[in-house]
Amino acid sequence: MNDFEEKTLSSKKIYDGRVVKLVVDDVLLPNGKPSKREIVKHSGAVAVVAVTKEEKLVLVKQFRKALEKTTLEIPAGKLEAGEQPLECATRELEEETGYRAKSLKPLYSFYTSPGFADEIIHLFWAEDLEQGVVHLDHDEFIELVEYSIDECFAAIKEKKICDAKTILAVHLWKQRNQRS
Amino acid sequence: MNDFEEKTLSSKKIYDGRVVKLVVDDVLLPNGKPSKREIVKHSGAVAVVAVTKEEKLVLVKQFRKALEKTTLEIPAGKLEAGEQPLECATRELEEETGYRAKSLKPLYSFYTSPGFADEIIHLFWAEDLEQGVVHLDHDEFIELVEYSIDECFAAIKEKKICDAKTILAVHLWKQRNQRS
Repeated sequence: MNDFEEKTLSSKKIYDGRVVKLVVDDVLLPNGKPSKREIVKHSGAVAVVAVTKEEKLVLVKQFRKALEKTTLEIPAGKLEAGEQPLECATRELEEETGYRAKSLKPLYSFYTSPGFADEIIHLFWAEDLEQGVVHLDHDEFIELVEYSIDECFAAIKEKKICDAKTILAVHLWKQRNQRS
Repeated sequence: MNDFEEKTLSSKKIYDGRVVKLVVDDVLLPNGKPSKREIVKHSGAVAVVAVTKEEKLVLVKQFRKALEKTTLEIPAGKLEAGEQPLECATRELEEETGYRAKSLKPLYSFYTSPGFADEIIHLFWAEDLEQGVVHLDHDEFIELVEYSIDECFAAIKEKKICDAKTILAVHLWKQRNQRS
């Protein structure tokens, strides 16, 4: 079994920003030919599937500049330097939604765009939610929304829920309900 | 209901590559304060959930430079200029796997990384697969793998399947089986 690994000949840093870095690598393909790979570097993120005692999914409504669109997504946020995923998930859930979970169980860690970015999202399931107080970052403008599973599927149809992690979260929630 | 829209003051192109563009926008936040948004622009992509008559999911094994790792993913590829998602999905499925589908049904279109990228993936379900001949691009080095649903969940556990679209695909396939 061949791993088709690509050897890096050189790596050029194009941009080093607050959220992403961009590098362009000169590589050797498995057939010995040269090529270029454009790679977006990201610190990684967490996201939380949080279902209330009333059987509603906790969502945040926010404007996404990259999409020029307002979306509904599960609570999520970037890992800070040295921060562990569990610690980050605990922090982001409380900051964005005010909820605290008795425990956060890891569901999956997945790459979002393996073709061009190294961003990984660590997805957690929140057990036993308790309502607290919202503490937003100074440049976060979000609104809390809580949807039943039928409302979630309707929001997917209407493209209000329109990102991979949240669509996956809704399906994981549905499967969990079917098992129990 | 507030949409929290951010007004673009200026937009600076940092990089214009083969796969991604990077722009940095100066924006006005809803509170009137200035901020910057780093945005990766991508042409969009398609991906196909293709299950064989033997009830195996068609996967491609490939090296992902961004992750420095070999992954198993459902067949996928970038939209070319002016290409429609259905056309692209038909082409990519056949090029990468040799399979042709009698029809491709749209499942979901989702953004992969709404925090920093506009990439959208149009996900299709392939009906009635027929084996044909693989035609790879000159810089594609991939291997075809076909896994049962149990093998897929094992591969997720072993982090060989490790990207959002493929994990979602496995769950959508599982739910489809539960319905029928």
